[in-house]
Amino acid sequence: MQQQLSVITLGIAELARSRRFYMEGFGWRPAFESEEIVFYQMNGFVLGTWLRTALEGDMQRAGLLSPGAFALAHNVGTQADVQALIDRLAAAGGRILRDGDAPAHGGFRGYVADPDDHAWEIAWNPAWPIDAEGHVRFGA
Amino acid sequence: MQQQLSVITLGIAELARSRRFYMEGFGWRPAFESEEIVFYQMNGFVLGTWLRTALEGDMQRAGLLSPGAFALAHNVGTQADVQALIDRLAAAGGRILRDGDAPAHGGFRGYVADPDDHAWEIAWNPAWPIDAEGHVRFGA
Repeated sequence: MQQQLSVITLGIAELARSRRFYMEGFGWRPAFESEEIVFYQMNGFVLGTWLRTALEGDMQRAGLLSPGAFALAHNVGTQADVQALIDRLAAAGGRILRDGDAPAHGGFRGYVADPDDHAWEIAWNPAWPIDAEGHVRFGA
Repeated sequence: MQQQLSVITLGIAELARSRRFYMEGFGWRPAFESEEIVFYQMNGFVLGTWLRTALEGDMQRAGLLSPGAFALAHNVGTQADVQALIDRLAAAGGRILRDGDAPAHGGFRGYVADPDDHAWEIAWNPAWPIDAEGHVRFGA
């Protein structure tokens, strides 16, 4: 069985404000857009931002809650990049949960919530190598 | 800016039952384990299952909720594999949200909640190619 994930789908309330956070904040470009979903090609999988009501219908489960018990992480190349990106994400409609600082296990990180309250950790972690395609390998 | 994600971290209540779902259900093997976290090397990023209280502490935000407004997807190679995996995940402590059927946009999919109520879509999608390392490319 492949240790494999194809898609992360985030439920969102409206496309425009979510799109602004990902396009202006992170600087990402969609692979596909419709009136209810935006897909971004990531490092080996696809990120989807889909109207929450449509996701609930597909999942056959109403009442999805925020903030959910999860975090996504985006790693940057230097310690100084962490706060710079956190500030840019906040300017694009995000909300800072934790400014960048150094955790006990090393590196440097902070957290920003996207406009739908999904948490992104912005981290600099020199122990985890990232290749040119953005693929990350676990490192101790 | 790389369209890049390094880690998905799921908040969990206890390690043993989560570990059983991912190891016996999906058949995955950890890259690292401690008393509060398990890391799995995925296709270009790392999946972490971390005690929710520890995640809340790191995020500086208490009160994370389930079910969160998101879904993760694992794609399989044939339509018949969808329900077989859904059933195996249910036998390993998951809960079926939707048995496999055919959505309007093509392919075949169902949903299972992990023991912490995080939703996994199990899908067969012939339009999205997956390479030998499990890397997925968006396809229309």
